[in-house]
Amino acid sequence: MNLAEQAAEVLDRLRARRPLVLCLTNDVAQNFTANVLLAAGAVPAMLRDGEECREMVSACTDALLINTGTLTRHQAEAMEQAVEAAVHQGIPWVLDPVAVGLLTLRTRLCRKLLASPPYLVRGNASEVLALGGFDAASRGPESTDEAAAALPAARQLLSLGCGAVLITGETDYAADDKHLVSCTNGHPLMTRVTAVGCAMGALSAACAAVADSPLSAAVASAAIYGLAGELAAARASHPGSFAVALLDALAAMTPADLCRCAKLM
Amino acid sequence: MNLAEQAAEVLDRLRARRPLVLCLTNDVAQNFTANVLLAAGAVPAMLRDGEECREMVSACTDALLINTGTLTRHQAEAMEQAVEAAVHQGIPWVLDPVAVGLLTLRTRLCRKLLASPPYLVRGNASEVLALGGFDAASRGPESTDEAAAALPAARQLLSLGCGAVLITGETDYAADDKHLVSCTNGHPLMTRVTAVGCAMGALSAACAAVADSPLSAAVASAAIYGLAGELAAARASHPGSFAVALLDALAAMTPADLCRCAKLM
Amino acid sequence: MNLAEQAAEVLDRLRARRPLVLCLTNDVAQNFTANVLLAAGAVPAMLRDGEECREMVSACTDALLINTGTLTRHQAEAMEQAVEAAVHQGIPWVLDPVAVGLLTLRTRLCRKLLASPPYLVRGNASEVLALGGFDAASRGPESTDEAAAALPAARQLLSLGCGAVLITGETDYAADDKHLVSCTNGHPLMTRVTAVGCAMGALSAACAAVADSPLSAAVASAAIYGLAGELAAARASHPGSFAVALLDALAAMTPADLCRCAKLM
Repeated sequence: MNLAEQAAEVLDRLRARRPLVLCLTNDVAQNFTANVLLAAGAVPAMLRDGEECREMVSACTDALLINTGTLTRHQAEAMEQAVEAAVHQGIPWVLDPVAVGLLTLRTRLCRKLLASPPYLVRGNASEVLALGGFDAASRGPESTDEAAAALPAARQLLSLGCGAVLITGETDYAADDKHLVSCTNGHPLMTRVTAVGCAMGALSAACAAVADSPLSAAVASAAIYGLAGELAAARASHPGSFAVALLDALAAMTPADLCRCAKLM
Repeated sequence: MNLAEQAAEVLDRLRARRPLVLCLTNDVAQNFTANVLLAAGAVPAMLRDGEECREMVSACTDALLINTGTLTRHQAEAMEQAVEAAVHQGIPWVLDPVAVGLLTLRTRLCRKLLASPPYLVRGNASEVLALGGFDAASRGPESTDEAAAALPAARQLLSLGCGAVLITGETDYAADDKHLVSCTNGHPLMTRVTAVGCAMGALSAACAAVADSPLSAAVASAAIYGLAGELAAARASHPGSFAVALLDALAAMTPADLCRCAKLM
Repeated sequence: MNLAEQAAEVLDRLRARRPLVLCLTNDVAQNFTANVLLAAGAVPAMLRDGEECREMVSACTDALLINTGTLTRHQAEAMEQAVEAAVHQGIPWVLDPVAVGLLTLRTRLCRKLLASPPYLVRGNASEVLALGGFDAASRGPESTDEAAAALPAARQLLSLGCGAVLITGETDYAADDKHLVSCTNGHPLMTRVTAVGCAMGALSAACAAVADSPLSAAVASAAIYGLAGELAAARASHPGSFAVALLDALAAMTPADLCRCAKLM
């Protein structure tokens, strides 16, 4: 199988297995994240309380997403409990370290969580740089670094035990300790709608639940989401209708579409 | 009046009286819930703090919704205060016990709240089964039981003093201690958009504010919402545009539409 | 420059400078608020934790929004910290006192925050009346007073040091201590979608980051948003599709549109 066929296989499994993804994510992204998961074929579950997270992980969770936007001290504690439970159950967990490096509370949390290395890290260049301990330029939630500039930081995170790192930007890069894959699917309108990036972290967690490797999950989520963005942009040229079209495109996408249109290398 | 005419009467009153519905609901559903209430003709008010809930109930609240998704300990306390105030003021309150039975914190809260029996309970089959003390099968937020299977549990809840129970699924069932009504309006796309179920709980609270009985509120909300789903599915075949069309259909629906198209028995 | 040209100049600067607006806002409005800011050309950042707010204000914030909907005690503390940091850094802050006067917790917070007078207050008539210490009629989040009725209260707030007051309603009024401007752009569908008002507070904060005066920011946000509402209503006649069209219209609007269509006096 080539890379596009592997991504298509992941999409096919998403629809067949409908993995349940437990999301501890920020206030802005809750609704759109759940809708992205449903559109892609997965089942979202959102929780706040740490004890409820533990129970949900034990009961019926296939993958866990931790997203650090709008963090509170209470949520940071719940996230630690959820990750501990996921590690205990052998469930893959994904870290989306929104604005790490810029703000102390979440930076401290992310460093702590890295002690149980995630199956996958998804971030923009600034976030991957900061998480890897490098200097990063950012402007709040926005990266001012090129994705490729974060590859050394990705290697650092891989050496700490992370399964794969997905750096998103104009070109997305997915790396594990042996391979580097680039994905050039996507569209600039994806940066004009809030929560699009955060929801991608959840999609990569859904892929992690069904893929054969962290790299395969990272590559599949980049290709699926980027292609959905392209298809949506063909129908909508402004951000309000684009967000709607993105969900429609995700739901309508077939593995065959992905085989034909994924731009992976 | 037949059942469809009674539902149409409730919709008519919603538009005339514009009841204010105080919602203590989950993070994922806040926005869509408020938009469903506005589209249907009601006025949403969302709060977090228990003391503010008490004040709002006393000041200008026509019905109260308690939805247990993304529960926290703080919110559980606020919910107890809100229900206590609603009971004190004689305002109908609706319980939407998301994922009860699966998670301890919310299960404990729901049991406690049942001591002041709600005007209406809305849940999927698994939630009604669990709330009634029966064994339930579920997968996170999703029911794996058929709606009809929860009728014995509904009877148990009615015997505890709940005014009516609305079990939602492919067929919805509304029951009080003397009657059982089924509603077959609806569309499968309603399960592909997050918060659609939660917002229905809020709609049934709005109906509770204007209906003549708990059963009538339950039946009307099932018919109004199910028909809106059918009308939306006639215009949109994917979940992003379906969610938009659902709000449009709710706003455009007339009591005459409901008389003509409600599938109640 | 006439008033419309001044508003157009503010829109032009929004697109050129892309100010970062830190929003401490309610659960219902988080997502729509961020999307309104992005569509208008600004960069949203949403936070919860007080210490993270301080850091973000110091790092890269151009304006701060405080919106009191769904307030909690924790958030009230974070808001005090954020305002203190904004004042210390000389960054304009905007107060959107949702339901002030009706509920004690937020009323107490607003009174406290007025000690560091905001660059701009945006509210409906009831909120401006209550904040100014006058009697107000309201029904939860809805004003039952006419915008013009709140002008004496606006004058009171200006005398306390607020830079400008924007009273929104069928006609919007923007006032500073020397001028009064009315804006009749807008459309009734704007009251049928939740968070539309709250997102306007954030837009006025974005304008505050680039405008020459509080009054100019208030007038520009009223004209930009009201015109977007009119353009959206020309394409969508129901609330679901209207909300989508509102974001599209904001993103597509040019300064020339505003020069031609702003209804300011």
